[in-house]
Amino acid sequence: MPDLEFIFHPSSIAVAGVSQHNSTADMFLDPLIQSGYKGKIYPIHHKANEVSGLKAYPSIMDVPGPVDHVTCGIRATRTPELMRECAAKRVKLVQIFTAGFSESGEEEGIRLEKEIAEISRRGNVRVLGPNCMGIYYPDLGISYEPSFPKDGGRIGFLAQSGGNSMRLVMLGAARGIRFSKVVSYGNACDINEADLMEYLADDPESKIIIGYIEGTRDGRRFVRALQKAAEAKPVIMFKGGVTEAGTRAVASHTGSLGGTDAVWSSLFRQLGVMQVDDMEELIDLLLPFQHWQPLRGKRVGLIGIGGGYSVLLADASARAGLIVPAFTEELKSSLRDIVPREADPGTSVHNPVDLSVSGWNPDIFSKALETVDKYDGVDFMLLCISLHAGCIGGPLKQMIDKAVDALVITKKKLNKPVAMVILEDFAPETRKLSSGIQEIVRQVNIPVFPSFNRAARAISRFIQYHERRQ
Amino acid sequence: MPDLEFIFHPSSIAVAGVSQHNSTADMFLDPLIQSGYKGKIYPIHHKANEVSGLKAYPSIMDVPGPVDHVTCGIRATRTPELMRECAAKRVKLVQIFTAGFSESGEEEGIRLEKEIAEISRRGNVRVLGPNCMGIYYPDLGISYEPSFPKDGGRIGFLAQSGGNSMRLVMLGAARGIRFSKVVSYGNACDINEADLMEYLADDPESKIIIGYIEGTRDGRRFVRALQKAAEAKPVIMFKGGVTEAGTRAVASHTGSLGGTDAVWSSLFRQLGVMQVDDMEELIDLLLPFQHWQPLRGKRVGLIGIGGGYSVLLADASARAGLIVPAFTEELKSSLRDIVPREADPGTSVHNPVDLSVSGWNPDIFSKALETVDKYDGVDFMLLCISLHAGCIGGPLKQMIDKAVDALVITKKKLNKPVAMVILEDFAPETRKLSSGIQEIVRQVNIPVFPSFNRAARAISRFIQYHERRQ
Repeated sequence: MPDLEFIFHPSSIAVAGVSQHNSTADMFLDPLIQSGYKGKIYPIHHKANEVSGLKAYPSIMDVPGPVDHVTCGIRATRTPELMRECAAKRVKLVQIFTAGFSESGEEEGIRLEKEIAEISRRGNVRVLGPNCMGIYYPDLGISYEPSFPKDGGRIGFLAQSGGNSMRLVMLGAARGIRFSKVVSYGNACDINEADLMEYLADDPESKIIIGYIEGTRDGRRFVRALQKAAEAKPVIMFKGGVTEAGTRAVASHTGSLGGTDAVWSSLFRQLGVMQVDDMEELIDLLLPFQHWQPLRGKRVGLIGIGGGYSVLLADASARAGLIVPAFTEELKSSLRDIVPREADPGTSVHNPVDLSVSGWNPDIFSKALETVDKYDGVDFMLLCISLHAGCIGGPLKQMIDKAVDALVITKKKLNKPVAMVILEDFAPETRKLSSGIQEIVRQVNIPVFPSFNRAARAISRFIQYHERRQ
Repeated sequence: MPDLEFIFHPSSIAVAGVSQHNSTADMFLDPLIQSGYKGKIYPIHHKANEVSGLKAYPSIMDVPGPVDHVTCGIRATRTPELMRECAAKRVKLVQIFTAGFSESGEEEGIRLEKEIAEISRRGNVRVLGPNCMGIYYPDLGISYEPSFPKDGGRIGFLAQSGGNSMRLVMLGAARGIRFSKVVSYGNACDINEADLMEYLADDPESKIIIGYIEGTRDGRRFVRALQKAAEAKPVIMFKGGVTEAGTRAVASHTGSLGGTDAVWSSLFRQLGVMQVDDMEELIDLLLPFQHWQPLRGKRVGLIGIGGGYSVLLADASARAGLIVPAFTEELKSSLRDIVPREADPGTSVHNPVDLSVSGWNPDIFSKALETVDKYDGVDFMLLCISLHAGCIGGPLKQMIDKAVDALVITKKKLNKPVAMVILEDFAPETRKLSSGIQEIVRQVNIPVFPSFNRAARAISRFIQYHERRQ
């Protein structure tokens, strides 16, 4: 069992600094209640008897029975006192949300952080933070944001920044990404990136690791941990503070030392760690890792609806390093039997296959997919559909629903992985339709991307990762 | 007046091949009606007396009075007959939507296209297409898609692909982009990319030109037209078919010859034409051209809400080639007066300024913006806000609404251009909120981008364009 396992298994959590008036700390009480945390939850409030329907206590010391975790949202100046109480109460972990410590660059904040670290060490109370969001462990209902998914996944995520961790989980959730464990660790005055990377490397629940870091407190140990992790499973790192301006921002955000981009990039490359510099790019890249086994090769069968899209789909795929093989005459002839040109002059049976409007016919769509699946010359398939305001309601909506149902049934019979691009017109209604389709197809392990280039780049990187591991 | 001006000013449009049963041609009748076209509209139907509330005629020849345009959605084999009728009726322009011509690669289709071109030349009937969507000219209510914006803009767009033209207009519409004139010209058997580029170069209504082309029928003339256009105004080209696979797809889409990427790219560079290979990238790049005058320089003042974002915002800006200057002590002290650290420890007054949650306070937000605006060391400002499910309804929504109102009022007092990044969690409700904000701020010429990298790259390219023109 990795050392830090205990931080994910509290039997009780006290939240210090809750308010009945929607102040900072309620942010932490409500997610626990709404995420179905089964342990005991103790609001700490100086005079209220009850907060959010739970019995409140004036201090940690007043809680009857043991307290495993404390989430702290009180003022920075009062945290040392809370820490001392936690030590006396034999609390195992304190997550300090409060900011205004070393990241402020001010003497008082630096001193306060040192004091906390000192109490932590002497009193044997581990600390996450300060200046962090703490733990999201959906399997146990531990969460710091009520809108996070209640179901867990296979991706472990260590994040120095609380805000960026929230954004990534939410963005990921909307794209079908699910997490095993997320830890936002902030200024890292005790538990740091190296501890967490070591933990995730060993954690059987985390099959893929991602990290957002701004700097490191113990470079040597972190590199060793990263190496160990990268040997064990796919690791993707997002390094914040890679430019001079970014490093300046890091200093006032988590008080870390940034380090130059070149150093980090070459380190990541050496260790076989994938690097990203954009959240959307990170989510894109996670999708094939979450849904797919390694591919046999990079030959893609492209199937689209609309000729102009076929051109862009082919260009995007080839530009990203995928192979778009020309189909054999035999395959083209089989496809032509499925979509006769007389019935729909807009169709094409080359690679990309363009099903034109016939593609919404579930029968044609499924047969075309099965035919390309059987063809030995491709390793996976990438489908493209386009949605716009005209698809909302009416007969086209019904056709789309039927085509999606057919896709789910057909997918189960296929031998090759399938990815999908859903183009949208950016309208809220289309977003909803697209989300619905994505939610359905992710159940059969079809990752969905919002553009040709993003799909092709992510899949190509996924393939490269496995090629290098061989 | 450029030669092709007449194609945008028909007094009457006949739609050949309409159906009472939602077949292809209704696609063309309905957009005209819904877009408020003021000229006469004549449905042509072999037996119906009325279609969509308009009196129908059995043939073009039966229409009383002149017909300027004909939109054709009938079968390919019947188009030569229609063309002959159009010549007899002295129709000025026929837009042929019908596919199954040279792009099919089949003898019969190639022959039919030649026949049409021949009738066009002899009968003095100009042709757009075949295999195209025709004209979108919102100022006159001419449109081929009912959901296109009814209001016009300053961007002229020539598009070989009908599907890609639709997608770009819709995507652009959702991002606040408006078009002067859009022409989808397909196989270009008569009016081609060179004619249209020449026209747009001279068109006073089009201040910026964009083109999606897959190939050219008359390379020399097109290059001359492109040169003329690029000398007159900003031109952005999206070339489809830049890889072998893409070129193969082009052949079966518009029957053009693709040409290699290297040749096109160096040509574009030589002529000062900007090249893109992604629709989202194209829209991003259009936004500053639509909303801004040339900038004085590339020094950006970054203002965000949330420390983790500040790091990424700074990194993205610097990486894209923008300058993120450190602020003077004097400026930092003025900003510190606006957001005292005691009131909100998460704030930072460096560049990026991080207003933390105080940023939603309209007063703090406006004062910070005005203070950075007055500072001589930056040329423009980039704001960042982040929206998620928690912003929908409730007190946070009210704060956001007030902050947006304050932004609109403040913006009018500022001397420097402002751009904005709105981060979203991808949920339909957030999309709606974000769209609403974008719709408001675009009225005061604030372009909105969905990510740091995309904002920084687009603005940096916009600056580079003007630097090269000097």
